[in-house]
Amino acid sequence: MKIPDKVIRRLTLYHFILDDLREDEKYISSSKFSQLLNIDNSQVRKDLKYLDKPGKARIGYDAKILKKAIEEKLGFKQTKDVFIIGAGNLGSALAKYSNFQDYGLNVLAMFDNNPNKIGTTINGKEVFDITKVGNLSQRLGVEIAILTVPRESAKSVANYLAGSGIKYIWNFTTSILDVPEEVKVWNENLIGSFLQFTNNDEVKENKNDK
Amino acid sequence: MKIPDKVIRRLTLYHFILDDLREDEKYISSSKFSQLLNIDNSQVRKDLKYLDKPGKARIGYDAKILKKAIEEKLGFKQTKDVFIIGAGNLGSALAKYSNFQDYGLNVLAMFDNNPNKIGTTINGKEVFDITKVGNLSQRLGVEIAILTVPRESAKSVANYLAGSGIKYIWNFTTSILDVPEEVKVWNENLIGSFLQFTNNDEVKENKNDK
Repeated sequence: MKIPDKVIRRLTLYHFILDDLREDEKYISSSKFSQLLNIDNSQVRKDLKYLDKPGKARIGYDAKILKKAIEEKLGFKQTKDVFIIGAGNLGSALAKYSNFQDYGLNVLAMFDNNPNKIGTTINGKEVFDITKVGNLSQRLGVEIAILTVPRESAKSVANYLAGSGIKYIWNFTTSILDVPEEVKVWNENLIGSFLQFTNNDEVKENKNDK
Repeated sequence: MKIPDKVIRRLTLYHFILDDLREDEKYISSSKFSQLLNIDNSQVRKDLKYLDKPGKARIGYDAKILKKAIEEKLGFKQTKDVFIIGAGNLGSALAKYSNFQDYGLNVLAMFDNNPNKIGTTINGKEVFDITKVGNLSQRLGVEIAILTVPRESAKSVANYLAGSGIKYIWNFTTSILDVPEEVKVWNENLIGSFLQFTNNDEVKENKNDK
């Protein structure tokens, strides 16, 4: 059964909550999730029905079983190897983002075109010359690239990746890529998140605005 | 009229596309957006109806007018001042993220508890002692904080922010915050994005997986 995008995102948040429970908190109620995330209790219960064995007991959900059920459903243990393209500020921060590993995202290597960066390591990940992507993606079977290059070069680098065996591009740039159909692009759109939040929550504007 | 979250996110992506047009591309068709973003043309046209004066002409949308209409609708010019809490890898990367400014997000200052970081500047933004948040948020009228501290301290720092006049927390950590009701939390959930993508696109797993 295909799980809707929003449900996947919420299941991830439930997992964060389960991860933070104390050792003696063995059971958790759906209302604890709904209260912390400010969503309907009925929504939480519906979401948890997507899991195979959510561990529902009379006194709540068994926290350990529920956690494992989410991990299995979303594939935390099925590691996906990725390359980070661009060893700048954001690329380096993502390479150092320790949480990724726990959720099945394994950064294998980084790539850049700056000779001063090539050959260095960031959090144990070597930075290779961008021209080596094709060779390494083939040798290591890597199909996913996280794109963090400057906006101006995003489109050309994306096409270069497409020609180098990359099948999925997680795009952190603010450029909309135009790659061959067989390459799938996931736009991260941080700007969109921010605008969504500020538009719907009536955030006060800077008083000095025109 | 309230604009649905998904529409806001897509309008942002349309704006990225408009931003990339050449000077001589004066008109743009809805099908150009739909093709680049791999969504239905009818969806694009529906989205653009949320704008006040989208600049629809017989030969397509006037690119400049459409761009301006999106900017006005989503409030790019209504600057919102924010603090970044945590001057680590991710916090620093966000402070250096040049795109934010163009979309109305203005990072005014950063905060950390590390004496080695306090007093330094990152991309022109001074790093203050975290205990100064309350004083500065009041003096500068800042209500939004971007939270990028380590997971372990996320909850306590969030409560500290709530007690210091911060009304909105854009949470980049993988901890679910438990703040007073009047404080609104926006969970960025990068992990959720990744899992959503990989679950729905049948990404090949690492061959060496158990």
